[in-house]
Amino acid sequence: MFNKEAFDAGNVRSYIREVFEYGRAQAKIVGPENVFDYSLGNPSIPAPKQVNEGIKRILDTEDSIKVHGYTSAPGYDEVRESIAKNLTDRMGMTIRPENIFVTCGAAPALISVLRALQVEDSEIIAVAPYFVEYKPFTTAAGHKFVVVPPDTEHFQVNIEELAKVITEHTQGIILNSPNNPSGAVLTEETLKKVAALLAERSAQYGHPIYIIADEPYRELVYDGLKVPFIPSLYANTIICYSWSKSLSLPGERIGYVCVPDCVEDGEDIFKAVAGAARLAGHTCAPSLIQRIVGECCPIMPDLEAYDVNRKLLYRGLTEIGYKCVRPDGAFYLTVAAPGGDAFAFAEKCKAKNLLIVPTNPFGLPGYFRLSYCVSKEMIERSLPVFKEVFEA
Amino acid sequence: MFNKEAFDAGNVRSYIREVFEYGRAQAKIVGPENVFDYSLGNPSIPAPKQVNEGIKRILDTEDSIKVHGYTSAPGYDEVRESIAKNLTDRMGMTIRPENIFVTCGAAPALISVLRALQVEDSEIIAVAPYFVEYKPFTTAAGHKFVVVPPDTEHFQVNIEELAKVITEHTQGIILNSPNNPSGAVLTEETLKKVAALLAERSAQYGHPIYIIADEPYRELVYDGLKVPFIPSLYANTIICYSWSKSLSLPGERIGYVCVPDCVEDGEDIFKAVAGAARLAGHTCAPSLIQRIVGECCPIMPDLEAYDVNRKLLYRGLTEIGYKCVRPDGAFYLTVAAPGGDAFAFAEKCKAKNLLIVPTNPFGLPGYFRLSYCVSKEMIERSLPVFKEVFEA
Repeated sequence: MFNKEAFDAGNVRSYIREVFEYGRAQAKIVGPENVFDYSLGNPSIPAPKQVNEGIKRILDTEDSIKVHGYTSAPGYDEVRESIAKNLTDRMGMTIRPENIFVTCGAAPALISVLRALQVEDSEIIAVAPYFVEYKPFTTAAGHKFVVVPPDTEHFQVNIEELAKVITEHTQGIILNSPNNPSGAVLTEETLKKVAALLAERSAQYGHPIYIIADEPYRELVYDGLKVPFIPSLYANTIICYSWSKSLSLPGERIGYVCVPDCVEDGEDIFKAVAGAARLAGHTCAPSLIQRIVGECCPIMPDLEAYDVNRKLLYRGLTEIGYKCVRPDGAFYLTVAAPGGDAFAFAEKCKAKNLLIVPTNPFGLPGYFRLSYCVSKEMIERSLPVFKEVFEA
Repeated sequence: MFNKEAFDAGNVRSYIREVFEYGRAQAKIVGPENVFDYSLGNPSIPAPKQVNEGIKRILDTEDSIKVHGYTSAPGYDEVRESIAKNLTDRMGMTIRPENIFVTCGAAPALISVLRALQVEDSEIIAVAPYFVEYKPFTTAAGHKFVVVPPDTEHFQVNIEELAKVITEHTQGIILNSPNNPSGAVLTEETLKKVAALLAERSAQYGHPIYIIADEPYRELVYDGLKVPFIPSLYANTIICYSWSKSLSLPGERIGYVCVPDCVEDGEDIFKAVAGAARLAGHTCAPSLIQRIVGECCPIMPDLEAYDVNRKLLYRGLTEIGYKCVRPDGAFYLTVAAPGGDAFAFAEKCKAKNLLIVPTNPFGLPGYFRLSYCVSKEMIERSLPVFKEVFEA
């Protein structure tokens, strides 16, 4: 006498978490220096010092009742202004505070948007490889979840395959760039092709097909690469963001939905997002940390440590003989599993305390993900183990 | 081409918020000392000093990456242990850490429980007067929302009316004690009657009918009154809690679901709650504030200021001739509207910058709510205005 879907969602064990727990247990036996844990996407660069300084300054100088008091449902006015100004300054498009709905992180943002777009028989498309939670979030919101097979050469979007799966019921497509798990950044060329196809099909079916841009890694790119601002290329784009990675605040659960003015029926979509957030309990995001991201959103992360890791790991694995696409963003590297069976290979690695994540649940069988938000020393120590399992 | 239910939920204006905004605007015109705002339930007692001290100590002494890092989905182990220990120490029942799922406040807790209990044709009962969001939360979770008419004499539960509305489809009844908006505390006598009725009907229909105890005001009671711990009186009780009021942290969004061991199918219900929380994006509650409530949950609020207000307001209004039930808990007083039309009376008050909230949307027409989490001076200044509108 309880909900089957909810029970099933709560009854699964996460492979990532199991591997992580295994690593913690092994560390006690063989020593932490002999466990090579690439499982979790927890930032290894600390939050900028302005975060903790800002928290302490607010606590020391402001009225505690106000500091910890309820915010407006979509967020503090001044926080929304600050976020909008930062986007306007950087993205070459005017974003107003009224376009911003602050949420408890990217998952609530995405869930609210998915719920807002749900209509009868609606479908949402994700491009493999995709973040594993997209599927349960999409189906729980009442949509059919449709997958575009991966482009394993460049991890862009396979346009021919995308064209095949768009139907009159397609409400949106989730794009995640920089991508978890591949680290790929969608190029302007790719996005223009996607935009042209969506525009054509929107016209054909007589309703907008939205891009839902899930962008928690937007600020994590290397080699001076610029991530295209998708609303500039395709008007009907709704952005979901989180400061989990850019400000290294994953535990603090703070992000936003942005519905730019260029979105068709944008004001109504915003209201539907606000209503979905209300019905799911995602209004009035945490007050103190809201203030902090309002202050700190212009701060760009110092990615030096991730970049060093990225190059070291990519070079090291490629030299051994692993096949991987060089990642341009995020802190993930996706690698083809030698032998083709990612779970079997992961088991082999696990026996050597090398903890990797098969990307089968991300819609990418035969590969594994490495989160390189780890210490450089761990990568250096792990390379001989990678060599050993590769040659075994 | 967007979700109608979500749009409608986002398109409503909140009467409470409108009144509050009106008060802010009027304050600029007539001066803040001439606006008497009883609209919002924002605590006026600051958080205990241990809250801000704890935040600063953690920031000063701990690794920032860990402090702001992801927590486990149901919350940090040590936080769940602390909450469980505190409940065990105070409530005379053993609560284990595994019974606790930490959430971003009471609304996510309630929403997760409602979703977990949803089955085909299921119904959830609320007792009027009830918190206005129960209805949208319940219907959005897929249940029918069923209301027990108010007991306007003592604001307990009208058992005869409750007996009439329980059906074989009843999955649960939400009890909110101390109550928003009445301030009433359900007595042990009332709860035993409810328990007996639910036990009888559970046996008759062959499945448990759960009490969902929404208890953000549990620690806010006066005159040394003890709030009964409902699981001790009725085994199938699931608790939703928030520290918004007891630690004066409404903006920080932190609370929990507790599924005690005595709950039938408790482990499965817990999994369903965890899954519902996952599907709605309510896992991994904010990390820093989780630590703080873990530390501060044994601290009882100093209610002196609320108690002074309660007595002053109750005595003042009663002397004027208003009819109100003396509240035992929370920081609300519910008053019968002179003339019987609460909205008409609220308009009369508004013209004098006296801002009150008709309880019609709480399932209690003809009454209004006063939130007395305000300054004592405001109450004193407002009493002549209450007299004026009463006599007009």
